[in-house]
Amino acid sequence: MTVTTPAPARAIDNPARALVCRGCGSEFPLAPQHACWQCFGPLEVAYHPDALRSVTREQIAAGPPNLWRYAGLLPAGQDPATRVTLDPGLTPLVRADALAAEVGLRARLWVKDDSANPTHSFKDRVVSVALTAARAFGFTRVACASTGNLANSVAAHAARAGLPSVVFIPADLEPGKVVTTAVYGGDVVAVDGSYDDVNRLCGELVETDEFEDTAFVNVNVRPFYAEGSRTLGFEVAEQLGWRIPAQVVIPMASGELLTKVDKAFTELVAAGLVEPPDGGWRVFGAQAAGCNPIVAALHAGVDEIAPVKPTGIAKSLNIGDPAAGRYALAAVRRTGGWMEYVDDDEIRDGIRLLGRTTGIFAETAGGVTAAVLGKLVRTGRLDPDAETVVFNTGEGLKTIEAVSSLVGPTHRVAPSLRAAREAGLLGRA
Amino acid sequence: MTVTTPAPARAIDNPARALVCRGCGSEFPLAPQHACWQCFGPLEVAYHPDALRSVTREQIAAGPPNLWRYAGLLPAGQDPATRVTLDPGLTPLVRADALAAEVGLRARLWVKDDSANPTHSFKDRVVSVALTAARAFGFTRVACASTGNLANSVAAHAARAGLPSVVFIPADLEPGKVVTTAVYGGDVVAVDGSYDDVNRLCGELVETDEFEDTAFVNVNVRPFYAEGSRTLGFEVAEQLGWRIPAQVVIPMASGELLTKVDKAFTELVAAGLVEPPDGGWRVFGAQAAGCNPIVAALHAGVDEIAPVKPTGIAKSLNIGDPAAGRYALAAVRRTGGWMEYVDDDEIRDGIRLLGRTTGIFAETAGGVTAAVLGKLVRTGRLDPDAETVVFNTGEGLKTIEAVSSLVGPTHRVAPSLRAAREAGLLGRA
Repeated sequence: MTVTTPAPARAIDNPARALVCRGCGSEFPLAPQHACWQCFGPLEVAYHPDALRSVTREQIAAGPPNLWRYAGLLPAGQDPATRVTLDPGLTPLVRADALAAEVGLRARLWVKDDSANPTHSFKDRVVSVALTAARAFGFTRVACASTGNLANSVAAHAARAGLPSVVFIPADLEPGKVVTTAVYGGDVVAVDGSYDDVNRLCGELVETDEFEDTAFVNVNVRPFYAEGSRTLGFEVAEQLGWRIPAQVVIPMASGELLTKVDKAFTELVAAGLVEPPDGGWRVFGAQAAGCNPIVAALHAGVDEIAPVKPTGIAKSLNIGDPAAGRYALAAVRRTGGWMEYVDDDEIRDGIRLLGRTTGIFAETAGGVTAAVLGKLVRTGRLDPDAETVVFNTGEGLKTIEAVSSLVGPTHRVAPSLRAAREAGLLGRA
Repeated sequence: MTVTTPAPARAIDNPARALVCRGCGSEFPLAPQHACWQCFGPLEVAYHPDALRSVTREQIAAGPPNLWRYAGLLPAGQDPATRVTLDPGLTPLVRADALAAEVGLRARLWVKDDSANPTHSFKDRVVSVALTAARAFGFTRVACASTGNLANSVAAHAARAGLPSVVFIPADLEPGKVVTTAVYGGDVVAVDGSYDDVNRLCGELVETDEFEDTAFVNVNVRPFYAEGSRTLGFEVAEQLGWRIPAQVVIPMASGELLTKVDKAFTELVAAGLVEPPDGGWRVFGAQAAGCNPIVAALHAGVDEIAPVKPTGIAKSLNIGDPAAGRYALAAVRRTGGWMEYVDDDEIRDGIRLLGRTTGIFAETAGGVTAAVLGKLVRTGRLDPDAETVVFNTGEGLKTIEAVSSLVGPTHRVAPSLRAAREAGLLGRA
């Protein structure tokens, strides 16, 4: 708990109704199932429209200072005692005037800083919702396939809840992400292969008898997991005083985060909690040049995502075969947005730009987003006079290698006034 | 800003009254002065008793979800527009039943997790208050002497506020702490010497004409800086439902944090905001074996702190000549507490213990505190039946070297079911 908030007087009901196939529209009961038995398409949680409409701004404001304030819009955890949680969310929305000036935006610019979550990435949101659903389904062990941040979050949540965990990561991950996962004491399996290889292995393991009791947050309980990302959209709207910004710039790995922020905005409007902005909102996606299959499809004007073999420093975005890529494409096209990508040097510059102008130290994914923001302004894709929110999804300390050769002490001196003077710290020597 | 909270209807007055010498009791006006002109003793902020008594729990609860909710108890920043801040504070108070069981505590145990602050240490508290006071005094540049965390926080706050910064650090700091400071774009001066050497140099620089416009947060505005630590005590009491715990275990570098948490509890009682616990509270201090001058004085039964040359991995606690050591001794003796120290191996074990049982990854200072907690229970100094709060003041990602050789992947496999089976992940191979 963060602060002792009185429980709401009336219990909230679970607003979720069913799992619906994003491909063929088939419906299934709420259960640990992630693919459609008809067409093998991915499943998504659908809600009772009346349940969403019954949620009020006042009810949300009276909730805890974390994502569980949106329990009336989530598919699990309505009873606080059932939550598996480090209490993520309600991360800062930071006004970024200096960043706006540097990239050439004239309208208000905000950074939604999800490095402020308990394990310092937006993954705490999806994990908290997924593990709460998983425990309600009776799972007794938790697992994931991860590019690093997800493993951190699953292992930490498991430690807090006293659940055994086993996380699967590519063997070449940044050391920061491996150590901070292993320190929680669960099993950490390094897999010789890419994230896509790790993900495939987990898809096989989940079908074995030995893993019958195990919730893989991004495999068998994925529909519940993915819903946690919507809280980023809910928070942005609430923190802006219940408004939706005209433009959002979002990093893409699987593409799911982008689609869920867009879904959150749509739901808030349908629930009567916000009015849409004049002209609607526009959604922009960001990838790294080393792994840009979704951007490439948009630029080529096609619907099919051609998988790539990821390279480059933005490892948390290195999903070469992005599960939600086609839905991200659809959201960007529907809203009149765009996507861009940047190379490793631009990513490093983006990290430093964000640090210098906002006091936020982002991981490589945040550097991607900051750099893409600039590129979208320069290329005329982003309206410089429309309010914009950019998403920083992770913490610079986890990918310190990206900038450690570029920044360091600006001076080195002996501990004396004379040495300080000779180093130019007191004007001319 | 974190969330749009309506401003309180009535402006809060600054409750600070004067600077008072902790040595001889001389009083001075509120100004950037840190030492007594009579006896050279350190100065501390004193408050109007009536002002503190006018603060109510309801007023605090209506404030923002960060340390500025206690503006009525702070010496700066009553007008939100004047704050230089990343909005630190209101960090999680985590119930730690599994940790209690491992160390042999039967009563409730909590971890106050200040790694959740914006730059991931408790230093954001003191910096936010110090820089707010400094800007009100007209300073146009900010600086500090730092063991790392303070430099991070000063540089990040300066970047957010658009102020130039220059931070002074020992040249042998952990790489994580150097990079995350330098990324904000200010000057970073590596000094060939210990923290005490760095601190001495800053004490000389502050007297030069060239640094006349510069607020050294822990030198010339130190009395305001130190007051920020009290918010840790305020929060613990508020988060416990306006109660003071029977026992607190606090890491010591200068010793100031311990004295300020004790002062916060005393003030809350005087202000009528809480009742003291039956039998009062007891304050316990933690240091590392490589730098334990305050503990050594307590164990020797003397008042004078003999300076040491620090060694060991807990660099954020490595202050060999601790400015507030005698006041920490006095607080521990007055309340009937105790102090202990632990060696580097125990610190590493403490980090892993905390991670495994709470899902919190602490820096070395947190490992010190967790390990000292266990030692205090084992040696009978801590009452195992009295509610206890331990303070984690920093983030494990900043001192990853401490445990990187001890934890890592538990398995390494090729991406196939067969490899997973041979590695024992599916029972016997």
